[in-house]
Order: sequence, then structure tokens, then C-alpha cells
Amino acid sequence: MTRIAVLGATGYAALELIKILLRHPEAEIAAVTSRQEGRPHVAMIHPSLTGRLDLRLEDLSPAEVSARAECVFSCLPHGASAAMVSPIVDAGARVVDFSADYRLNDADVFAEWYGQKHVDPGRLGKVVYGLPELYRRQIVGATLVANPGCYPTAAILPLAPFLKAGLIDPKSIIIDSKSGISGAGRTMKLTTHYPECNESVSAYNVGRHRHTPEIEQILSAAAGTAVEAIFTPHLVPMDRGILATCYARPISPISEETALQTLRDFYADEPFVRVVDHLPGTKDSLGTNFCDVTARVVRDRLLTISCLDNLVKGASGAAVQNFNLMFGFPETTAL
Amino acid sequence: MTRIAVLGATGYAALELIKILLRHPEAEIAAVTSRQEGRPHVAMIHPSLTGRLDLRLEDLSPAEVSARAECVFSCLPHGASAAMVSPIVDAGARVVDFSADYRLNDADVFAEWYGQKHVDPGRLGKVVYGLPELYRRQIVGATLVANPGCYPTAAILPLAPFLKAGLIDPKSIIIDSKSGISGAGRTMKLTTHYPECNESVSAYNVGRHRHTPEIEQILSAAAGTAVEAIFTPHLVPMDRGILATCYARPISPISEETALQTLRDFYADEPFVRVVDHLPGTKDSLGTNFCDVTARVVRDRLLTISCLDNLVKGASGAAVQNFNLMFGFPETTAL
Amino acid sequence: MTRIAVLGATGYAALELIKILLRHPEAEIAAVTSRQEGRPHVAMIHPSLTGRLDLRLEDLSPAEVSARAECVFSCLPHGASAAMVSPIVDAGARVVDFSADYRLNDADVFAEWYGQKHVDPGRLGKVVYGLPELYRRQIVGATLVANPGCYPTAAILPLAPFLKAGLIDPKSIIIDSKSGISGAGRTMKLTTHYPECNESVSAYNVGRHRHTPEIEQILSAAAGTAVEAIFTPHLVPMDRGILATCYARPISPISEETALQTLRDFYADEPFVRVVDHLPGTKDSLGTNFCDVTARVVRDRLLTISCLDNLVKGASGAAVQNFNLMFGFPETTAL
Amino acid sequence: MTRIAVLGATGYAALELIKILLRHPEAEIAAVTSRQEGRPHVAMIHPSLTGRLDLRLEDLSPAEVSARAECVFSCLPHGASAAMVSPIVDAGARVVDFSADYRLNDADVFAEWYGQKHVDPGRLGKVVYGLPELYRRQIVGATLVANPGCYPTAAILPLAPFLKAGLIDPKSIIIDSKSGISGAGRTMKLTTHYPECNESVSAYNVGRHRHTPEIEQILSAAAGTAVEAIFTPHLVPMDRGILATCYARPISPISEETALQTLRDFYADEPFVRVVDHLPGTKDSLGTNFCDVTARVVRDRLLTISCLDNLVKGASGAAVQNFNLMFGFPETTAL
Repeated sequence: MTRIAVLGATGYAALELIKILLRHPEAEIAAVTSRQEGRPHVAMIHPSLTGRLDLRLEDLSPAEVSARAECVFSCLPHGASAAMVSPIVDAGARVVDFSADYRLNDADVFAEWYGQKHVDPGRLGKVVYGLPELYRRQIVGATLVANPGCYPTAAILPLAPFLKAGLIDPKSIIIDSKSGISGAGRTMKLTTHYPECNESVSAYNVGRHRHTPEIEQILSAAAGTAVEAIFTPHLVPMDRGILATCYARPISPISEETALQTLRDFYADEPFVRVVDHLPGTKDSLGTNFCDVTARVVRDRLLTISCLDNLVKGASGAAVQNFNLMFGFPETTAL
Repeated sequence: MTRIAVLGATGYAALELIKILLRHPEAEIAAVTSRQEGRPHVAMIHPSLTGRLDLRLEDLSPAEVSARAECVFSCLPHGASAAMVSPIVDAGARVVDFSADYRLNDADVFAEWYGQKHVDPGRLGKVVYGLPELYRRQIVGATLVANPGCYPTAAILPLAPFLKAGLIDPKSIIIDSKSGISGAGRTMKLTTHYPECNESVSAYNVGRHRHTPEIEQILSAAAGTAVEAIFTPHLVPMDRGILATCYARPISPISEETALQTLRDFYADEPFVRVVDHLPGTKDSLGTNFCDVTARVVRDRLLTISCLDNLVKGASGAAVQNFNLMFGFPETTAL
Repeated sequence: MTRIAVLGATGYAALELIKILLRHPEAEIAAVTSRQEGRPHVAMIHPSLTGRLDLRLEDLSPAEVSARAECVFSCLPHGASAAMVSPIVDAGARVVDFSADYRLNDADVFAEWYGQKHVDPGRLGKVVYGLPELYRRQIVGATLVANPGCYPTAAILPLAPFLKAGLIDPKSIIIDSKSGISGAGRTMKLTTHYPECNESVSAYNVGRHRHTPEIEQILSAAAGTAVEAIFTPHLVPMDRGILATCYARPISPISEETALQTLRDFYADEPFVRVVDHLPGTKDSLGTNFCDVTARVVRDRLLTISCLDNLVKGASGAAVQNFNLMFGFPETTAL
Repeated sequence: MTRIAVLGATGYAALELIKILLRHPEAEIAAVTSRQEGRPHVAMIHPSLTGRLDLRLEDLSPAEVSARAECVFSCLPHGASAAMVSPIVDAGARVVDFSADYRLNDADVFAEWYGQKHVDPGRLGKVVYGLPELYRRQIVGATLVANPGCYPTAAILPLAPFLKAGLIDPKSIIIDSKSGISGAGRTMKLTTHYPECNESVSAYNVGRHRHTPEIEQILSAAAGTAVEAIFTPHLVPMDRGILATCYARPISPISEETALQTLRDFYADEPFVRVVDHLPGTKDSLGTNFCDVTARVVRDRLLTISCLDNLVKGASGAAVQNFNLMFGFPETTAL
């Protein structure tokens, strides 16, 4: 059994992570942390865990965490996460970081998009991006893995195969994404107050969502050249799920069948990417670690449509997939 | 044109009220108030009012309010409302109060259920309860009207006819109510954070919801004897609507047809109560000032099922209905 | 009073139309039709109309319709609509047609996209497209008006000003639209069965939605040159509302402020188009005849975001706006 | 590995069953049946099963089913289920029947409530009711188990302990239940067409829902005397979940603490009943095999509030729990 700590355990990604780990035969949750006063029982925060996990939320130091756990999942907010993760990694524990802190290679880009100086810039550029479909080999045996953002995974998986193959113009990419409300987290905001967001669809952070540089960095690496993407996130009234509708201009004309075959070939051996012929809906992947992708060609433009559960393949499922790879368990365990 | 002020204009009932008043040919909204800093334009708070009402939210004193308006709708919270309304009424303006401050006749009962001393106890017991179906005559010409709570209206309308006619046991009443989330207001709470309450049904405040004494007081007046009710409110994942399923023991056996006829007779001339044979759903009354009611008899027990839009017949529509009666306009104007 | 007939009154657009007409001081609903057997009362089909409209659904011939009504709103499906509308117009009644039958100018394009021969091709090209913001002058006094599709209105209103001004490349347009489920109509389909479409987002009819040629025809007329658009409709789990996110390549660089000013200038005198600075959500326009539009510039690309209620500005509200113009009533009456 | 057949595999309970069985280490799905033409792949009907189960839907005879499977889960409608199940049991396979066919002990009661003659009346009264919390001993080793209805499980679990202990009046019971829409099945009906049921709550089948005699039969057995219950089901706009609010008159006064302790004692060793102090919401048990129950005392009346996922503990999870007991696997396997 591998002893696990979950940092910042009050949010939705942490809750989903705990549920997945509870059915993992090789994982034992040893600690759950939060800065909440009074060490509340985890079931006080997450009633769905009643009777399933008998732990209290503790406010632990990095030293205490690394003493208690071999693998640490950090669900802390950006900034706070690196401040905890850095000494934990130094102390020898292995970490999957859900925050954005170690996803970008460049501290200046981080500062520009996140509005704060990076607290651990020395490690940037050396941390593996935890998307097994692109970086499996590096994840195996890694000490610190930057777990991808939910929007990036939904956009990178359908686009990377075409960019790797040089089939689409890297400056032509538009990503129009639709996300369920859990993606906005458990912190109360008026925009996620039920009567405000129910029965409504809206775009937000147009042109300035923080997942933009992350998407561009990973797609650029895939393309071998700088990729520029317009990324437009939308909130839709449902709990979970992201659907990404991506548009790109092919370098030379491409048929729909070639487009689909490109995806099928690229993901032939992947356990969690399903290339489908039909138009997938987010409900198809709800509660699973699958990302469903398909492609269409309309007026000579390539369209990809992809969907996933933002809390599973977009967060906690991916994290456990990374954990399995890091620790040598079968990749699909508990997923 | 009657000059109107809306106090506490940032909430959902106030928003709905403003929308109704905008189509009222005899009403002119002269002021909207809030304690918010900076006098924001009302459309900054309620984007749906963009281009429809060109007013800023002001923090006005009672004197300023009564100087500016002939009729004042107070959407302030309990406690705060009476503190504003009392001097406004003294200054000669007429008021429809959405809060609970003037609904109960007894300051001790108020203190017990609302956990605070009443600031204007002298007026209690003399204020008209603004349910036209029971108190139309008193509302006409009234200076101050206590606008009913949304749950009380949904429960009183189906039960009062049977209690007035002495057909049901006044100690046998169970009211099982289901409400949309807007009933919980615009103040952010974790319970109304979208991912918490969407796709979930739950009961809350069982046995201690503040609408209980209000329901019992009005039903007792209708029955001419003390009524005791068990009231169980539930939150259901939708914006608007209340469905009340009420159970009562008939004094002597009653047929379903007699039960329905009792309702039909009682509400024969009412413009906003629809006695229906089918089982109504809240959507039938969505966005309208109607309350739909029906009755059934199951195992000798009387069941009533009633529904309304909590923001219209349950709040702002009723308030305008009261306004129309107070000021001598046709009762259905703008409704 | 103008006598009105509503053809095909069992659907959602007809229901919304009836509700709007019920508050129209110059309209009297004289007949509602349907091929349903047994002449059911309209409230049997639409319980929300209980007590509001005392008519039965009748199966009337064109001659009977034109004898009973001065203005006919046809909510019949395409094909069936033209077959009824053509003789009604010949008999002298005036018609607002909700179907697609008279929207396209070219019978071949109709046949290609709708998979059937047009039954009244002689009238094509002479019927006014009922979008007052572009064709007000022609609508005034028109005999037959083709009421626009909901997706087209949501896409045309934000894009037309830029095409008219020659500011964007007419071959570069992408329209990514998100619609509530009522847009799919009242006919039962598995895709709109609640447990299938709730908590899910999906694209449908990618590259082959029938509103595509309608959008292109009207935008081409605005541009004075052939416009090609990629139109991707999505279903989102809510009752009503369309949000259109449109992307286009400016001919020469454009600032966000210029883009917004272009919209503001174009719609300065329009009662139902609100150019807003914030990012609008569909709920802002819910239940109203407004279309809210804004613009952004991201990586030198123009984005427009627009929203409306598909059953009001996207159907029945627009129809009443047309009716008002056709019959000389103030354009905003009942809206 | 135990070979499994799922009969009537196109519905939601079957889909959920398949998902649970896919993670069961001792179960192998050998056949999935349906009367659909053309032997479609199961993923054509349920896209979420893409890549997870490579079987076609077959129209198999009872003999073929019993040849292929050791355990048969019948998700067929009532009537059709017994016609298949009877010969399958005779042929020696073991069956968990999701339909109502074997739940009632009396063929006349069945005929009265289901409007048809029972096709296999000889077995009635000898079939185990598959609620492990009450009938675990009989389920172990059973050949045929009648899997409980979703509403009955949600109502029986909170009430049985009080009836067994003789603490409540068996004629005083009111069950007010609220269910998500998946409970109405995958067959299209106007009442479950999205725009009809979304944003609406309604009661249905008041006084005549078919789960009434089932609830009364099992509660009567628990009480040792005839129980009469008023059962009022409601549809609420969400995919899954049942909340049951039950009211009963205590025989002698009972405290809230005693009520809670009665539940705690009764379910002390149960793996899937969680007695909680807080008011549970259906989301707490979403996707799990838990039933959460609590109790309150209001005006001397006992209230119980219970919730479960209608497709898991209310159907497929319970079925696998029964399967585990029947075949000697740990009861919580795969749950």
C-alpha cells in the first residue's frame, strides 16, 4: 500500500480524487489537509464521504506531510501549492500537483497570466506535464508531475495529433469550450450562485483565461513550432463536463475520413481516449476517465469535437493515471 | 402616474417587481435603494434591466424615500425593513412590505422565530396581511400591507377553504413544500452554490422554518380555531416555483368531487387562483401571478396540491396585486 | 382589434406567441388550429393557458382561416406551412410564417437543404425576411413575412454591421451557437428526452444544419458579396436561450473599442438590440424580445457574443414585432 | 467468473448494471438482450459503453439465455419479465428480476394494480424480496430474487425499524417522495420531454402509483400487522435520486434522539445504510449504493428523511448486492 496525502481536500477535485483512491487497491489515504480551523472530520465538509473515510482535515507542515505520505496530491490553489510542494519534493515525497504552478515552463509567462511572482522558479521547465497520452515515458518514475488543466486536456488531445503531423496551420486554431459549473470550484462566487447561472449560458474571460498559455505551450511542443490559439471558455448549467469545439485550417485539403483516421492511429493504444464516429456529448464520459474525440471537415476547415469529465479525466482521474504510472501500477487501476 | 420607490433593490423579488412595474401603466419607478457603495446603476446589478430602467441605486433615508414616492415597496430583510418602513408610513407614504416584519400579530412570536426583538411592535396586529383572496376588503385603501411569504401563499390558498368550511381537522395538517432555489435569495450560501444544490433534492429547516407561525396564524384565523401544521420545506434544482403537497384529515368523510367543488366555489371569482382537475406542475404557473390548486382524496385523507411562481404570486406579483387594490387600479393590471 | 389565427398551435413557439398576444391591446385571438383529433381545448395541450384563452384547437381549411382572421401566424412545419399559407395569402389575409418555407430566395437551395420540393416556388425571392433591424421598411405594409430562424437572428444581428461596413472577411466566419432544448421543439425525440440531454452538452448537425443557408443568404445581402459561414449548433441543458459566439477575421486591424462602436452606431435607434460592454448571458434576455450583443478582439480576430430568448426574439416576439410593423401599431407593443 | 446475461439491456437500470458489473472481478457479461431489430452493438444504444463492452444486443429465447448464463438480470417490463424469467428459472439459471412481477405475494393484488393477469402466479409468495437489510438470510442461496422498486427501498428502509419495534401507528403513514426523471425510464413520454419537465416539479399518480402495494406488503410484514400508507410521488428536474419524506404518528411520544438511535441500532452492521444526524440531500448518495436516513420529531409526529440513487441502491446496485449474496461473494463487491 502506498500512503497518500491529499492537500487542500475541501474542493471538488479533491473529493473526486478521494473517491477514486478509495477504490484503488494499492492506495491508502493517510492524511487530508486544509487550513480550516478545528480539524473537522472530512465528512463534515463532504457528506458523501460519510462512512467511507474516517479522517479529520489537518493543517500540516510540508515536513509532516512528507513524513506521512509517499505520494502527495496537491489540490491547493496556485501559489500556495508550489510553496508546499517545493519542500515536500525536496524531502523525498513524490507529488502530483493539480495547480497551475508547475505547468508553464517560463516564470515570466506565469507572472504575466497569474499576476504573481513564482515562488519556485528554479524547477520550472524541468517538471513533467502529466498528460500520459503525450508524456507517458517521462511520467513513469517522475518525482513531480504537473497535472494538466481541464480545458487544456480537452483541447490538446484532439489537436495534438494534427499538429504533430503538420496537418493544420498552427496560427489558425480556435477553441470554443463549454464547461459545467464545478469547473469554477467550490469557492462561492455570484457567477456560480444557482439562480445566476442556472438556465443560462455565457462566455467568460474571453481572450484572457489562464489556460491559454498552457494550451499553447503544449501544442507548440507537439507542433515543433509556436502555436497560437484563441480560447473562449463558456459556462453551461450542468455539474460536470467539458465539450471543446475546435476549428483549424488544414495546411492542405483533408478529408473527414483522413481526419478521423489520424485520430484513430494516434490513439490506437490509449486506454482513455475514444475516437468515435458520432458526435459525442459530455454525458458519454460523465464519471469516467475517458476523453471522447471526433473530427469533421466543414467548408475545408477541420473541426474537432471532444469531451471529458472535468473532475475525472480533467483532474482527478488524470492524477490517478499519473500516480499509477509513477508508481508502476497498471495504468487503468481504479479508473 | 403613481411614484414608486423600491427599497433593497438588489434581490430577486425586487428585480421581478421592477419588471412588473415597468409594464404597469400607472406606476413610475422614482427611486431604487440599496446600501451598496458608489451608487451603481441598477443595470450593473441586474444586467437584464439594461436599457429598461435608467436609475442608480441610492442609499436614501426614510424622509427622502417618503418625499420621492407615494408607494414604497420594501424588499429589505426582516428587522431592517420595519426600521425603514415605520417612519415612512408615519410620513404618509403607503407601503407594501415584502419582509416578515408585519406579518405576525404577536411580537413575542416574532422574537421567538426570528431571534430578535421587533423594532416596531406597536403596529403589530393592525397591519393587513396582503393576501387578496382572504383580505381584499382590508387591503383596499390600506396604508401598510404585509406581503405574504411565498410558502405561506402556496399553503394557505388550498387549505383555507376547507378550514373555513370546517371540513378538516385543524391539528392534522402536514405541508410538504418543494421550492426552486431563487426562494433562498441572492445572498451567496454554500447550500445554493450551483454544484452543491444542482441535481439534488433536500429538506431544510425541518420543524423550524420561519414561515410556520405565519401559516398557522392565517389558517387559524380562517378556521376560527388554532391550527397546527407540520411544515417541511425542500429545495429542488430549478430557478422558480413552489409546489405544496398538503395532507389533512377530514372531519367527516369527503369525496374528491366535493373537495374540488369546495375549491371551485371558494375561488369562483378570483382572477389569480385556478382550480384545476389535473395535477398541476410549477411550470404551469411560471412567470405568472396564478396559483393553481387541486384536491384528491387518498385513503380517506384529503390531499391538496398547489403551485405558484415564488417570485410572482409568491412575492412581487402579489405585491402589485396589493398595490392595485390599495390605489384603486384594476386588480389585474400588469399581471 | 385585429383578428388573429394561430396555425399549428400545439408547439412552444405558438404557446409563447399566444401569451404575448394575450397582452396585446390590439390583437384578438380568433382561432387556433391543429390537426389533432377531437378539437381539444387549448388548455388541455398547454395547461399554462388555463383560464386565459377559451378556444378549442380546430382543423381549419385555408378558406376558413382567411375568413376568420386578418392576420395569420403559421407555426406549421416547413412544407405544411407553405401549403396553407399560399392560399391564405391569396385570399387576402396577411401572414407571418414561422417556418423556413419563405426564408430562402432559391427553390433549389430549399430543396437541397430541406430535402423536398418547394410547394410555392413562385413566391420565393419576393417575401420579406422579418428581421426589422435589417428590413423594417419592407416589413411595414407587407402581406407575407418570413419570420427568421432563432439561430439566424442570434448570428446575423452581431455580424451584419461588420459585413455592411466591409470590416471583416466574408469567408472567415465561424458561428459557434449554444441553444436551450426548447429550440428542438415539442415533438418527442430521444435526444430531447430529459435523462439523455440533461447534464450534457453536445454539438449536432455539424456542417449541415438547415439554418446555414439562411444565415449566409442574409449576411451575403448585408455584405453585398457572398458570405460563407461555418455554423456549429450545440444543445445545452436549459429550456431557453441561444448564445452565439462568432469569430471573423478583420480586413484590417480593428480595436475592441472600434468594434463596439460599430455595433453601438448600427443599433443606436433599435428598441430590441442592446449593445453591451460586459459579456452577456442568455439569462439577461430570458423572456424578453432583446438581443444582447458585444464584441471583443482576441489575437487580431473579431469575436462577437450575442444572446436572445429563442422563443421570443428568436421566434414569437419577433413575429409580434413584425405584426406591429405590418399593421401600424407601435413596434414595441406587448413586447 | 460467473457468466451473466442482462435481459432488456436498452434502459437506464440495465446501463447502470452493466457499468457496475464491468468492475466486478467475478462477473463476466456473456449476453445482453433486446427485441431491437438488427442486433445493434450495445454502444450504439449506450455511447458511454464505447470501448468498454464489445457485445451486440440479441433477441434470445429463455433456453438460449439459460444456456449462456449462470445468473440472469431481467430488466424487462412487468409481464414480459415473468414470461422470460419463469422458464429460465426452471432451466436452472438464477435470476434477479428488476420488474414488479415477483414482488407482490398475491396475484389478485398484482392484477388490480398492474391491470393484467399474472403469467406465473404459482411462484408468487415464494420469491424472496431482494432487500438485504430485511431479507439477507433468504437471499443467500436464493434462485430467484425480486429486486425492490426504487420508491419502496427509499420508504421501507427508514420506516421498517419503527414498525418492527411497534413505535408508530401502522395506519398513519404518509410517504411524500421526490424522484429524478431517470426513474421514469428511457421510453419517451411527453412528461419526460425536457422542456416539459425541466424547471418544474409535479406530483403524479397520486393515490394510485403501483409501488403502493409493494411498500405496504413489506412494511406490513415488518410490522406484523396491516400497514396502510399514503404514497405521493413527485418528479423533480434532475437525472437521479429519490428523497422520501415520511410522516408517522408515534404510538407513544418519542424523542428525536430515541428515533435516531432506533435507526442507528437497526442499521449498525449494514454496509449500505448510513444513519446521519444532518438532513441528507440526494447528491450525497449520487452514484453510490448508499441509502442515507435520518429522523426528526415535529409536533409529536415522527419524520424520516431518506435518500438514495434510484439507479443504484434503487435498482442496479441493489441487484448486484443481491447477486453477491446469492453467489457467495463479499456483499460489497463492485459497490
